[in-house]
Amino acid sequence: MRSASRGAARVHDVRRLRDMIRAAVQGGRYPDGHLPAEAELMAAHGASRGTVREALSLLRAEGLIERTQGIGTHAVVRPVDERLIAAHGATSPDERSLLNRRTRPWMLDRSEIPAPAAVADRLGVPAGTPCLRLEYVALYEEEPIWLATNYALFPEAGRLRDCPFVTDWYALMADAGVEFGQSEFVIGAEPADPLIGDILRIPVGAPVLVTEQTIADPAGRLFDLAFIHTRADRFRFVSRGLRLPGSEA
Amino acid sequence: MRSASRGAARVHDVRRLRDMIRAAVQGGRYPDGHLPAEAELMAAHGASRGTVREALSLLRAEGLIERTQGIGTHAVVRPVDERLIAAHGATSPDERSLLNRRTRPWMLDRSEIPAPAAVADRLGVPAGTPCLRLEYVALYEEEPIWLATNYALFPEAGRLRDCPFVTDWYALMADAGVEFGQSEFVIGAEPADPLIGDILRIPVGAPVLVTEQTIADPAGRLFDLAFIHTRADRFRFVSRGLRLPGSEA
Repeated sequence: MRSASRGAARVHDVRRLRDMIRAAVQGGRYPDGHLPAEAELMAAHGASRGTVREALSLLRAEGLIERTQGIGTHAVVRPVDERLIAAHGATSPDERSLLNRRTRPWMLDRSEIPAPAAVADRLGVPAGTPCLRLEYVALYEEEPIWLATNYALFPEAGRLRDCPFVTDWYALMADAGVEFGQSEFVIGAEPADPLIGDILRIPVGAPVLVTEQTIADPAGRLFDLAFIHTRADRFRFVSRGLRLPGSEA
Repeated sequence: MRSASRGAARVHDVRRLRDMIRAAVQGGRYPDGHLPAEAELMAAHGASRGTVREALSLLRAEGLIERTQGIGTHAVVRPVDERLIAAHGATSPDERSLLNRRTRPWMLDRSEIPAPAAVADRLGVPAGTPCLRLEYVALYEEEPIWLATNYALFPEAGRLRDCPFVTDWYALMADAGVEFGQSEFVIGAEPADPLIGDILRIPVGAPVLVTEQTIADPAGRLFDLAFIHTRADRFRFVSRGLRLPGSEA
């Protein structure tokens, strides 16, 4: 019994340490992405060597860190942390934002189609209403970061169809003179299947954020629905909420 | 060449249809979770029978839908869509919210420990500062939905340690008389590893939302850091952003 419960405690320790090191790696808290040596990680987290090794091994399996003989352990990749409010287009993106004309689109499709039932239903128009399907992969430093399939209604669709798509979606809307008001995201997650993995160049099973976005015009009429698949190794959303004094619990 | 490009077009069609049906299933748009028959899906989406079958097969592989001989296809599970603003504790949760005293905690740990280096660094205190590690699984209808490991500083930690934890985290903070101001989420995704899968009762590789949360007191001093692993089949975040007229592009 004792050793079973010690084993369980050990498993929890490994998981907690993995969480902490992952957050530090992804948050860019190790200089140049170089992780401290095992002995240092043990001391800093009051952990045994075995626990440190298992936590690092989980992070390696995840593809987050790499170990180079004689050099040490370093972060393979660091995600860009994007303010959700900028992803909504509600504020101007800051300098580090990928939505600051820093991506370029690899166009998969920009064609007029009758709105499929599920799209029409979500946008509140009859099935078959003409729409523009605009599908692209956002490339950043030549790496695919997300795949977005937009279904846009007219008249906005006409302007989005005729305007050069040079960098990112919000730049396209601005260049096309398309004004918008509220947008909504529904944020979930999926493991990459072969179809998504092939396009985003990630292994099957790699973590992907799935976002369903609707965009309304300034009067509140929905004119765009998008399904967005984003590499979770490359991208995280940052959201802030402020509780006002005197709010009810 | 022609058949290769036809094959590629077909693959895109399957993926797009999968996205649309998944959104409809997860958004609860099919009455009682019963999907339309194949012929109806073909007509509604202008898709071939093969495309519909492949899209449904992907959703079955994902565990989202099930097919019962003679009855048809239905949703296995539907996620709760939680307003991000309620998850921040910035507004009172609405009735459907899981943060409306509708979960109960399965406590894994509530003990005082010296803050590990990565936690201390994030909270801006010296490593080793006493903190309360409060770790629990949120159960909803007896199903584990998320696993949260909180690291809370004193004096808040003392009140969180001594107060009964009956439903959800925000209820605990309210019951303990802990006031807070801004909270921040960094939202990413991971495939469940064996440790997370075991606790959340999901298969290895199932999609999980990973959230790193910090909570500040009303004066802006950080007093809590949490790592939260949430089942993506059970939970999605909903976020809304409003672009104000006259905002710059």
